[in-house]
Order: sequence, then structure tokens, then C-alpha cells
Amino acid sequence: MGKVPVENNDTEGKKNEFSLVRIKSTWKRKLGMKAKMNTTDHVSAAKIYESIEETGTSWTVVSPIVFTYKVTEAQNLLDPCNDTLLLGHITDPQQVEDMKKSSKPLKRFVVVDQEVFKIYGSKLTEYLEANNVLYKILALPTTEENKSMEMALKIIEEVNTFSLDRRREPIIAMGGGVCLDIVGLAASLYRRRTPYIRVPTTLLSYIDASVGAKTGVNFANCKNKLGAYIPPTAVFLDLSFIKTIPRRHISNGLAEMLKMALMKHRGLFELLEEHGQMLLDTKFQADNSRYGHNHIQAASQATRIAITTMLEELAPNLWEDDLNRLVDFGHLISPALEMKVLPSLLHGEAVNIDMSYMVYVSQESGLLTEEEKQRIIRCMVGLELPVWHEACAMELIQKSLQDRLKHSGGLFRMPLPVGLGQADIFNNTSNEILHRAYEKWCDELSVSSDSNCDPSPARIPTLHQF
Amino acid sequence: MGKVPVENNDTEGKKNEFSLVRIKSTWKRKLGMKAKMNTTDHVSAAKIYESIEETGTSWTVVSPIVFTYKVTEAQNLLDPCNDTLLLGHITDPQQVEDMKKSSKPLKRFVVVDQEVFKIYGSKLTEYLEANNVLYKILALPTTEENKSMEMALKIIEEVNTFSLDRRREPIIAMGGGVCLDIVGLAASLYRRRTPYIRVPTTLLSYIDASVGAKTGVNFANCKNKLGAYIPPTAVFLDLSFIKTIPRRHISNGLAEMLKMALMKHRGLFELLEEHGQMLLDTKFQADNSRYGHNHIQAASQATRIAITTMLEELAPNLWEDDLNRLVDFGHLISPALEMKVLPSLLHGEAVNIDMSYMVYVSQESGLLTEEEKQRIIRCMVGLELPVWHEACAMELIQKSLQDRLKHSGGLFRMPLPVGLGQADIFNNTSNEILHRAYEKWCDELSVSSDSNCDPSPARIPTLHQF
Repeated sequence: MGKVPVENNDTEGKKNEFSLVRIKSTWKRKLGMKAKMNTTDHVSAAKIYESIEETGTSWTVVSPIVFTYKVTEAQNLLDPCNDTLLLGHITDPQQVEDMKKSSKPLKRFVVVDQEVFKIYGSKLTEYLEANNVLYKILALPTTEENKSMEMALKIIEEVNTFSLDRRREPIIAMGGGVCLDIVGLAASLYRRRTPYIRVPTTLLSYIDASVGAKTGVNFANCKNKLGAYIPPTAVFLDLSFIKTIPRRHISNGLAEMLKMALMKHRGLFELLEEHGQMLLDTKFQADNSRYGHNHIQAASQATRIAITTMLEELAPNLWEDDLNRLVDFGHLISPALEMKVLPSLLHGEAVNIDMSYMVYVSQESGLLTEEEKQRIIRCMVGLELPVWHEACAMELIQKSLQDRLKHSGGLFRMPLPVGLGQADIFNNTSNEILHRAYEKWCDELSVSSDSNCDPSPARIPTLHQF
Repeated sequence: MGKVPVENNDTEGKKNEFSLVRIKSTWKRKLGMKAKMNTTDHVSAAKIYESIEETGTSWTVVSPIVFTYKVTEAQNLLDPCNDTLLLGHITDPQQVEDMKKSSKPLKRFVVVDQEVFKIYGSKLTEYLEANNVLYKILALPTTEENKSMEMALKIIEEVNTFSLDRRREPIIAMGGGVCLDIVGLAASLYRRRTPYIRVPTTLLSYIDASVGAKTGVNFANCKNKLGAYIPPTAVFLDLSFIKTIPRRHISNGLAEMLKMALMKHRGLFELLEEHGQMLLDTKFQADNSRYGHNHIQAASQATRIAITTMLEELAPNLWEDDLNRLVDFGHLISPALEMKVLPSLLHGEAVNIDMSYMVYVSQESGLLTEEEKQRIIRCMVGLELPVWHEACAMELIQKSLQDRLKHSGGLFRMPLPVGLGQADIFNNTSNEILHRAYEKWCDELSVSSDSNCDPSPARIPTLHQF
């Protein structure tokens, strides 16, 4: 996939390249280059290559599909005067004007996480009522344990009963990553693709699940085993949702921010190092009187850098055809760990434990100095993230890396930090280094086993250990 | 989707266009045009547009994904000496050589329609054994009634147990359109995209389901309500499978061929007019002694024209973003008709009844002469296809057209033949014409009601009626 076939030489049989030209309602293939075409011709970006062999004819179709989506910071998304949630996905200003003028009510199907609905349900209902929307709100318990095809089909059934115009009436998903992922899959399947909108309500989904194309559900006890790569039409980012989430879930989101910092952005790392505690205290809210202008800056800077660095890595590799991915940092061992101890670790916590071990691998490989390693671990502890877990045994690490080998075309493709805010992909980390790093990691970071199942900061080592 | 956003003017806020450049393992966004980049830079086709507004920052991601797939005529696909089925999807000759030399056995998961397995099961098993393949064959009753998400999930479960390398071990689907559609969806969902290969065994799937990107299952009594647009890695076309299908199913496939003929190719129409009966008698087989060289030519010509005309229309519109589609001819009323009388009409039969009515609409609109209309209907009858059905009442026609309006952005977009082998899309066909055409259609083609449920040629009017 993704490669345009090379022309064969003459000995291998005749090979023709056809362009496709639109004439009225019909597409006609035309041999050879654009030079022969009229300038008024509508020429497709697709091509057909025809090759005539002894055994028959062979056609190769090369057809590019362009995905376009919008990630937008928005304030007061549920203020009845703000039409972003209803019209913000439309790119044509004329169409927006026409819809505002039209007396025909808009129709929207909204899937909301059950816990989010408890807090924002009445505000959402008021918003839709005030804007004269024909709506259906479906509140669901979108937990990791419920992230299944059954739930996706339940959503589809309700959507089908509600009867949407699949070209013009996007499905809205409001919640954390699990909610956004399930709804994304349901929408992508319904009528082979129904547009959908993501409204993340947790810090983790704000900077992670919201910005990419991936949708999915768990299957056969494996994370996101079923899914699609279909980006939303639009993502609306409203930081004010974050103020109602528990402190532990702020840490959870900070883990994925730290991932981007370690892989790509020293400035973001230093920002998290310096302001991490404050971001936890204020939950990224601007209206906190205890902190001043500096804080507001830090909160918006941190989220923006996390999003732009993420988009940089995702946009050129939306369908993950390139297996060398820095964004996989923290995601080699954590899926097995997370599923093994479900529901005791949050996604970002499992990712952080994976990253913490990998930092030791980096240091052991000579890619990080001891001092850099300590700074990173200290930053993780400052963000109130677990840096070690009993269930993350050497056996689990090795099994995960074997799986990686199998599904990554025979190479480890291990992203590792190289200094602070930079990284590279490595394929030849020796078993010896993996073992030495593991021992050191356990020596320095393990905590007494009785606190491992406790999600409180108790299982985080104190800073004086370094 | 599919549109690159236009640059805003200055009054609407600052808007930056970023290219994405690969530096080692990292993607970096770079402002502005290519001129500033080094020629050795790896530049992505994707772009990020950043716009800074009063309410926050907005990013628009534009990312093209290129789909490449191969449709190949192949002879003796199950001959153990023919490695097409196992290696024919690989485009890199070096890789093929490496795999041939390797002692590591290939691993293939094959889903076969149950009826196809009865005939070709032992040959397929022998083929896989002879080629030292680690295989699993899953034979399933892939009928229209069973075309469900449950069956897709059953396939996925078995694939998961079998444990494939999703990058290098494509799933093979062998059967009619239903089988190819379900397996295509299962593969597209598994690990967000696992390559799959289509081997059509019916005439209908040979020229229709096999060449496009659509996959799907029925849901809530609607045809293909759930699905994806993911083309197979390769399609292997072997006409010899057609020899074992019943005569009625040859007619079924001829209906979709006739569709392409009426929409785009007068030569194909004349070929079907002249040789239709012979194609039915010989089931497109070259080794039939009753007919000579002319026949062999007609069979391969007809299938090739059907495939190339289909590819012409599909390649530029792989994801059906353009709603004006000539290939929709025969598919406006037939889905409801087919589902209503399930299983009494085959897909191509329902399509033909739809086309037959539309030919009357065309004639009534002055797009076809009475003589052309008669030639078309006579050709349909010659292909032993039903041209009228009691269940295709005016009410069903109107409901189907209303649905069309709803899901096609408010326009009918009705493909109609304009002369023989040409067509256009029409939006303003009046209710009066639809009614007049219906009356004439019933007057001229209706047969006594007691023969309607009988799939034999008895319900086809005799030619002297014209």
C-alpha cells in the first residue's frame, strides 16, 4: 500500500498507464500523460495501470483519498450562544450562513459518557433545546471494560432508529478516550462512513485520542484489536471540562504529554518539570486565583505543544503505514500490563511505567546520562505518576517485545529518548541491556508490594531515593 | 472531506501552512513552501494549517492516503504449480524471490463459501498442502440472510486464534459477493486493517464485488448498512470457477455486465445482444466444443470490458465522495425490492428489474427511442433476466427514491441511459413521468401473478410481446 508501481520494461509485457478524465457524468481512461488533455478536462488524481501478460490482463488501481479534519480550541462549548458544537465542523462559510438562516431544525445524535452526563447532562440538554435541535442523547458507561463491539453496535442501532442524514448530520461523541474511540468506530461503520465529532472531556483524550484518526474497541482481551483509521470531521477542545475530573486523571493525561516531551520537545519537558505540580493543582483552569498569569500561560502552552507535536507525528502517518513511530513510546509493554491488571491502572499510568523502564534502557544503552535519567524519573514522580509496577515483570516485558517483533515486520522499532526532548528508533537493543536495565529499575524504584494495588500516590517512591 | 482549505485573508486571523519534513525518526513541521527545504529532505504529502483566532488555535490536517490494489486475470489458480494465490499480491519482485527461497512455510487463513468448499475444498486443501502452507480453511454459509456482523466477528475470532502477521499474511476470501464483502469487512476491522485477497467464484462477483473497495454486512434488514471502503490487496480472477455455477446465476452476473453496457459501452451491449445466449450456454468457458474461437473471444471480451468500465468509474471515486455515480444504475429501487422478497430474487435479478423500469423512465423522458427501449428489454429477456416484478409497486419505487433524496444530499442523482451505451445523471424527473413509465412498464411487461415467485424463466415475458 502507498507505493505507485514502477513501469515494467518491455520484456515483461506491455504496461500502460491510464489517467482518468471526466466527460459529463462518465469517467474515461486516457492513455499516457496530461499533455494530451484539454485544460478544461477534469482529471482525477487516480490512475489505472494495465499490464497484458500471457496469462491474462492485470490492472493496478492507484487511488489517493484525502482526509481533512479540524482540531479546534473552543471556549464555553455548551454556552447556548456558541454554535461551534453544531456548525464548527463546516468549512464552507456560505454553508454556515445558509444553515443559520434556515428554519429547518438541525438534527444531532450525541453519545455521552454516563459520568460526564451526570455532570454536564442538563447543560447539554439546555444547549440543544435552546438551539432548537432535534436531538437524541445516548448516555453510556464507556469504561475500558465495556469497550466492545457490542457497545458499538448498540450505538449504531440507536443511530439507525434516530435516522440521520449521513452526509450532513455528524454524530457527536463527548467523553474520554474510550467514548471517543467507540463512537468513532460506530460512525465509521454506519453506512460505510458517517461523519463524527470528538469532544474530549478528560486531559488524556484532550491531547491524545482526540487528535488522531484511530478508532477501536477491545476484542478477545486485547486492547483496540478491532477498529478503523477514520479521523473525525472535527475535534472541539474545551479545557473547562477538565476542571471536574479527579486529580489522578490529570496525572493520567500528563503521562501522554510527558511522552511527547521526551520524544520531541525539551521545552515541554522543562515546562512539566517546573509547572507540573501547579497544573495538577489548578487542573489546567485559568480562573484559579492562587496562581497568576504564568500559570495560564503554562497550561495553554503545555496543551498546545502536546497537540502540535502529536499532529506532526500523526499527519504524515495517519494510517500507520510507517511502522517507525515515536508516538509508540510507552506503548510497547503498557498494553499487556494495562489489560493484565485491569482496572487498577489507568492508561497513562501504564504508559508511564513503560516509559520509566525504557528510560532505564536508554541510560543503560548510553543514550541518557544518569543525571538525565534522574531528572526524568523525578519529573514523573512530580506529576504523581507510578514509575514501577510489580506486575511489570521481565517475562511480561519480553513477551510484549516478542509481540512487537511479530507485528512490526520483524524489527523491534523501539523508540528511546536520546538526551532530553529528543529520540530515535532502535532495533538492536541487546537482551543483556534489557535485563540490566530491569534489575536497576527494580532496585531503584520498586516499592513494597502491599501498596501496588493502591492507586494513591503511596506507591510512588519519594524523591530522596535519588 | 477531500477539499484542501482555502487560505483565509488577513482580517480573519493569521493562518499558517506547514509542510512536514522528516529528520531522522522525527517529523518536524516547517512553515511555508518547499523552496526553503533541502532536496534531501523527506517531505510528506500531508499538510497542517494553523489558524490563530481570538478563541484559540485551530489546526486543519490534510492527509492523503494512497490505496493501491491489483485486479489480475489468472488461470488455474488451484493448480499446485501456480503460486499466484500465495504470492501474486506482492508487487516487489525481490520480495517474491526471497519468499520462494525461504524455508519458512507461508501462513494463510482462507474463508470459503460452504457451497464452493463442497466443490473445490479438496482441490484447495491439496493446493495448500502441496505448497507447504500452514493454513486454516473456514467454510461458511455466506448467504444474503447470513450477511451479518455476527458472521464477520466469527471470522475475526478464528483469525485471532490462528494468529496472523497482519502485515504480511493476507486473509483469502473465496466465494460470491456476500463472502467477499463479509471477509473484506472482517479483515478491515482486524487490527484496524489486515490485507485480504478476493477470489470471486460467481460471475456476479467476478465483474462486480471483486473490483471495488466496498465491504459490508446487512444490518436492521438493510443491505450493507455497515461496512468500510477498504480495497483488497489483490483480486485473482479465474473464469474456470464459473463453470460450476447454475445457469440462473450466470444470468445474475450478466445483469451487472448489462448495467455497464447501458451506462458506458455500446460495444458491450451489442456483444451481450448477439452472444448472450451463447455465454449462458457455455458459462464463459473456453473449452466448450459447441462454439468456436468467436465464443472464446466474446467471453473474455465481455468480462474485460465489464471490468475496465467498472474500474474507470470506481478508481476516481473509491470512497464514493462524489454522489453522482453511473454505477448506481439499477441500484436505486433494487435494494428495497431485494430485501423485501428475500431470498426469492438474486441481486442481479433485482437490479435488472430496477433497470428495466428505468429504461421506461428514460424512454418516457425522451432519452431513448421506442426502438432502443425494445432492444434493451429484448436483450434482458435474452439474458434470461426478469424484467418486471409484482412486488416492485409504485409505492416501493417512490419510497426508494425518497430515501435516495435523503442520502444523496437532497438530489435524486438518477442515472439514466441516453441512447445505447451512454448515460447521464438526472435530478428533475417529474412524478408524472415516473407514473406514466410505471403504467407502461406494467402494461407491457407484467406477467400473471402466480408465476412471480417462481425463479424460472417462466416469469420472463416472451419476445413476441414487443
